[in-house]
Amino acid sequence: MAITGVMRPGHCQLRVLDLDASITFYRDVMGLQFMGRDGRDRAFFKCLDERDHHSLILRQADRAGMDFYGFKVRDAATLARLDSDLRAYGISTERIPEGDLPETGERVRFQAPTGHQFELYWRKTDVGNHLGCRNPEAIIEGRKGISPVRLDHWQIHGADLDGSRDLFCDVLGFSLVERILGEDGKQDMAVWLTCSAKAHDIAFVRDERNDTLHHASYLLETWEQVLKAADVMTVHRVSIDIGPLRHGITRGTTIYAFDPSGNRFETFCGGYDFYPDMQPTVWTWDEVGRAIFYHTRELNERFLTVVT
Amino acid sequence: MAITGVMRPGHCQLRVLDLDASITFYRDVMGLQFMGRDGRDRAFFKCLDERDHHSLILRQADRAGMDFYGFKVRDAATLARLDSDLRAYGISTERIPEGDLPETGERVRFQAPTGHQFELYWRKTDVGNHLGCRNPEAIIEGRKGISPVRLDHWQIHGADLDGSRDLFCDVLGFSLVERILGEDGKQDMAVWLTCSAKAHDIAFVRDERNDTLHHASYLLETWEQVLKAADVMTVHRVSIDIGPLRHGITRGTTIYAFDPSGNRFETFCGGYDFYPDMQPTVWTWDEVGRAIFYHTRELNERFLTVVT
Amino acid sequence: MAITGVMRPGHCQLRVLDLDASITFYRDVMGLQFMGRDGRDRAFFKCLDERDHHSLILRQADRAGMDFYGFKVRDAATLARLDSDLRAYGISTERIPEGDLPETGERVRFQAPTGHQFELYWRKTDVGNHLGCRNPEAIIEGRKGISPVRLDHWQIHGADLDGSRDLFCDVLGFSLVERILGEDGKQDMAVWLTCSAKAHDIAFVRDERNDTLHHASYLLETWEQVLKAADVMTVHRVSIDIGPLRHGITRGTTIYAFDPSGNRFETFCGGYDFYPDMQPTVWTWDEVGRAIFYHTRELNERFLTVVT
Amino acid sequence: MAITGVMRPGHCQLRVLDLDASITFYRDVMGLQFMGRDGRDRAFFKCLDERDHHSLILRQADRAGMDFYGFKVRDAATLARLDSDLRAYGISTERIPEGDLPETGERVRFQAPTGHQFELYWRKTDVGNHLGCRNPEAIIEGRKGISPVRLDHWQIHGADLDGSRDLFCDVLGFSLVERILGEDGKQDMAVWLTCSAKAHDIAFVRDERNDTLHHASYLLETWEQVLKAADVMTVHRVSIDIGPLRHGITRGTTIYAFDPSGNRFETFCGGYDFYPDMQPTVWTWDEVGRAIFYHTRELNERFLTVVT
Repeated sequence: MAITGVMRPGHCQLRVLDLDASITFYRDVMGLQFMGRDGRDRAFFKCLDERDHHSLILRQADRAGMDFYGFKVRDAATLARLDSDLRAYGISTERIPEGDLPETGERVRFQAPTGHQFELYWRKTDVGNHLGCRNPEAIIEGRKGISPVRLDHWQIHGADLDGSRDLFCDVLGFSLVERILGEDGKQDMAVWLTCSAKAHDIAFVRDERNDTLHHASYLLETWEQVLKAADVMTVHRVSIDIGPLRHGITRGTTIYAFDPSGNRFETFCGGYDFYPDMQPTVWTWDEVGRAIFYHTRELNERFLTVVT
Repeated sequence: MAITGVMRPGHCQLRVLDLDASITFYRDVMGLQFMGRDGRDRAFFKCLDERDHHSLILRQADRAGMDFYGFKVRDAATLARLDSDLRAYGISTERIPEGDLPETGERVRFQAPTGHQFELYWRKTDVGNHLGCRNPEAIIEGRKGISPVRLDHWQIHGADLDGSRDLFCDVLGFSLVERILGEDGKQDMAVWLTCSAKAHDIAFVRDERNDTLHHASYLLETWEQVLKAADVMTVHRVSIDIGPLRHGITRGTTIYAFDPSGNRFETFCGGYDFYPDMQPTVWTWDEVGRAIFYHTRELNERFLTVVT
Repeated sequence: MAITGVMRPGHCQLRVLDLDASITFYRDVMGLQFMGRDGRDRAFFKCLDERDHHSLILRQADRAGMDFYGFKVRDAATLARLDSDLRAYGISTERIPEGDLPETGERVRFQAPTGHQFELYWRKTDVGNHLGCRNPEAIIEGRKGISPVRLDHWQIHGADLDGSRDLFCDVLGFSLVERILGEDGKQDMAVWLTCSAKAHDIAFVRDERNDTLHHASYLLETWEQVLKAADVMTVHRVSIDIGPLRHGITRGTTIYAFDPSGNRFETFCGGYDFYPDMQPTVWTWDEVGRAIFYHTRELNERFLTVVT
Repeated sequence: MAITGVMRPGHCQLRVLDLDASITFYRDVMGLQFMGRDGRDRAFFKCLDERDHHSLILRQADRAGMDFYGFKVRDAATLARLDSDLRAYGISTERIPEGDLPETGERVRFQAPTGHQFELYWRKTDVGNHLGCRNPEAIIEGRKGISPVRLDHWQIHGADLDGSRDLFCDVLGFSLVERILGEDGKQDMAVWLTCSAKAHDIAFVRDERNDTLHHASYLLETWEQVLKAADVMTVHRVSIDIGPLRHGITRGTTIYAFDPSGNRFETFCGGYDFYPDMQPTVWTWDEVGRAIFYHTRELNERFLTVVT
C-alpha cells in the first residue's frame, strides 16, 4: 500500500557523440558523480544525493538521443506482475538479465506506442549518498557544478500519445496530472503523468517524430539553485534554450539547456504534489504558451522543434 | 498501483480554549482559509492551496490537544479493505456516518496503541484552490499571514510506540523513514513514518503521556517563507518554541510555535523524498540533539516537556 | 564626510497616457503606495519602505517618457555648492521654488548633454515607512503586488554620453563603476555610475535619440521576490521584455517589463557594492550580450530599440 | 563628493590561540582565501570577492581578542586631513609606516575612548577578486565553506560609549543609524554607526570591559547562504551562539558563532540601506530583546557576557 507498483524514474541511457567530452561535462558542469565506465563504451553517473548505483548511462554513438528509459518498481513480485500485465495488454516484453547494467538486477523491456524503449527493474545496488544512514549530516559538502538532487522525469515525443498515455495509466498505474488539449478541444497534445506524488514522472507530447527525447530533467532544491545553475551554464558556455523561468504546468521553475551532443536537459525545481484524488489540470490550445512558459507566455521555435 | 491505500493526512480536530480568538489566529496569523463554523462549536479551515473542503477543525473545549487525526485513503474499496484489515489485526473500528463532518463522507474511526483516535475516509468535497483546473494561474494572489501550502504531518506521543508503529507499517502500509534509538541501542524512542514519498506523514514518540500531541505541521514552500513565518509570528507576538533552523531528521527547515491555546504547531519546509526501497536512517541516543535540531545540536526543555 | 554631495535618485516624473489606468497599475500591480494626486494631472507614489513623501510622479501626457530625474543631495549647503559648481562648469541652472512638487523643497534644474532634465533638491517630507522609528517591526505586513523596496536607478539614452558622463563624474561626484567599449575599443557605448556604494545610481547609453528613457529600476530584496514579480506580471498580463535573469554588469538579477504606457521598468535585485577605490569593470563590444544578459548572452531586438 | 572620508572597515588583527588550527578554520570552514603568513606569527586572509590584499590578520597570542580595527579612507589627502582632525579633537595619533602590514600603505593609529585601537589607511594592493575587471564572469566558482562576501562590520564594547560615538560621528563623519536607550530613556546603551549607506559599519556597546570585541561580522549574500553557513558550522562542529534568525536592529539575518579561540563572529545578510537624511531608529530598554533577536525576543546570557 501507499507507494506500490512503479516507484520512480530510475535510470536512462543517453547517446553522446564524444564520450570523453561528455564525461567531463556531466561530472564537472552538471556536477554528477562519475561511477566509472565499462568496456562497452558506456559511462555511469548518479547524483550525489541519489543512493542507487547509477541513474544516467552515457553511450558513445553517432547520433544523440535516448536508448531507453528505466523505472524502478517496488519489488520482485511487482516486476513479475507488471510483466504479466503488459503482456496481457498486448505489449511484448523482453527480459534483460541481471548484470547487463552493472549493479542492476533483471529488467523487463518493452516498446511503448510512441516508439520509446522502456524498462522496469526492482534491484540496483544502494551505494549511499555520501551521508550514510546512521547519524548523517544534513548536507553533502564539496558539491561542484549544478549538482542536482536526482534524475526527476523525462519529456518524450511520439505520434501515438494516446497509446502511451493509456498504457501508462491503465497498466502501469500512472495518474494523469495535467494535459494540453489541441485546437479541437478534445485531443491531448501533451500529457503529464505521475507514478508517485510528484507533479510528473513522465510527459508525452504528440509529435510525428517517434522515439524522440525532448528533455531529461534533473531536480534542484531551490530557486536560488536554479539561478546558480544558469550562472554555471554561462561560466561553461553551455547552450541555454530558455530560462530561468516558471512553468504554468506543474508551477515548477526551470532552465532548459543542451549537453555537448545536443541532448536537451532541464534543471527543475518545485512543482506541486499530486495525489490521485485530485482533478487533472486542463490547458486549452490558446493558452499553451503560458502553460509551458508562464512568464514569456509564448513558445520559442527551438523549444518546439529540437528533439533528439 | 503507484499511490494506493492511505494517501495523506487529511484533517484533524484541534481543541481550543477560545474559539473566536482561535478563528482570528488561524485566519489572520496562520493565513488559513476560514470555511465557516457549525452549530457544534466547531470552525473549519483549509490552506489556500488545498483543494478539499477543510483540513483543520477547531473545537471549543476546556483543555487543549487533538481530538482525532484523519487520513484520506484512495477510494471506497480501500476504506472497506483497511477497515477489515484493522479488525483482522485486532483493532476495533467504528463507522462515523457521512455528514458528521461537513462535505465529508463516512469515516472509519479507531484507537491506536498510543491512545490516539485516528480515522480513515475517502471522500471530501473538492472546493478548489482558488486557481481552478482549467488554464490556472501559477500563484494565488493576496495571501496573508504565514499561509502554508498544506497540513503536512503530525508528531504525537504515547507509551506503546511499538504498537502504533507496527500498526501503521503492517496494516496501513506506512514505511519507516527515520528512527531514534534509545540508550540501549535497540528500542525506538521515536519513529518517522510515511505513506507517500514524503519524509514523514506521521511521527510517534515514546512518552508515558498517552494520546498527546506534540505538534501539527504545516508545509511552507521555501526557506524564505520560513523566515517570513518567523517575522509574522513576531509581529503578532506568537510564542515561538524554537527556530528557524534545520532538522537533522528529514533535513527539513522549521519553526515550532504555539497557538493561543498552547497547542504547538510547526511551519516546515523541505525534507527529502523517501521511497520504500530506501534504507531507514537510524540515530543513536547520543546524537539526538543534532537529529532534532541540526544547528543547536541540543534539545530544549520546553520542546521535550510541553505536549497537549 | 562618508556620504556627502549627491545621495541618491530621489524622484522622477513619468509621462503616462492614461492617468487613471496608470494609478491602478502602479498601485495594484507594482504595489507602490499611492500618495494622492494634485490638480495638475499628476499622481504621487512611494515604495512602502521609502520614507520620503514620494519617489514617482505620474503625469498625464500624450506621449510616454520621463519629464525629469531628481537626485536628493545632502543638505542646503550642498545644493548651493552644486548649483554653483554646475554653473562654473558651464551648465545653466534654474531654481524651481519649494512647493512646485508637494512636500518638496526648492529644486535646482539643469539639462545634461544627453538632453535629459535633471534636478537636485535636499528636502522632502519624511512621512515614514509604516514601521516608525521607535521600536519598529522588521517587516511591513500586507504588501501587495510587486512591492519594491525603493526607486533604485535609471538607464537613459542620448548622443553625448561623454558629456553627461563627465558632468556626473567631474561636477556631481559620481564614480564610474562599469563601462562597455565600442568596437573601436576606446569609446564608451554605455557607462554605469554611482554616487553611493551601489553598483549604479544611473546609467547612460550612447544613442542618437536624445532625452530618452530606457528604464526606471525598482529594487527588490531577493531573487525569490524577482520570481514573485514575474508571477505577478503574468497574473496581470504585464508585457515582459526579458527576465528573470542575471546581468553580467553589476551581477544583479532582473526583469524588464513595460507599464501600460510603454515605459520600460526594471525589477532588480542585488548588485555588488562599489567603493571609489575599486577599478571600474570594462566590457568589450564582443561580450556585450553576456554583459547585459548573463544567461542568454545575447541582446534582444526590443531591448535595444524601444525607448520612451 | 558622494563617498568620501572613511569608506569602510578594511582590516582587523585578531588574536588566536593556535595559529595553525586557526588558519585551517578560517580557510576551510569560513572559506576565506589564505594569502600567506609572515615571520611575525601572523597569517593573512581575504574574502574571495574582496579585492584588497587582506582584510583579516590572525596573530598567535595567549589570549583571544582584537588587536586593532582598520578603516580604509578615500585617499592620501583624506588620511592627512583626518589625522589632523583627530589631533585637533584631542586624540593622539601615531603613524605606522608602509610595509608594517604587507601590501599596505602608511596607517594612522589612535585609541578610541572605549579603549580600542583603530587605524586609518588609504592604500592596500588590489589583488583582484578572481573575476578580473575585463569581461568578468558573474560568479566565483569553487567556493568552499561559508565563503562570505566581505568583512562587514564590528561590534565592540567599552565604558565610554558616548566618547567613541561622538568621536566617530563628529570627527570621522559617521552617521548614527540605530540606538538602544537605557532604562532611564536617555543614555545610549548601544549605537550602530555607518560611514557609508550600510546599516552599520561599526557598533559600540556600553560595557565596563574596555577594549573588548563582541564580534566581527562577515557578509553573506542571501538567507539561503545563512542557512548553508549554519549547516557548515554543524558539519564542522563549530560552536554556535545563536541563529539563524533576524535582527530587529538593521533587519539583517544572522548567525553568531565562535572561532576555535573563542572569538565570536557573525555571518550576516541584509540590513536596509541608510542615508544620512534618515532619522535614526530608537529602541527602548523594554524592547531590547526584540531589537537584537527579532524572533526569540529575548537576549541569551552568553550573548550578553562573552566578549574577547
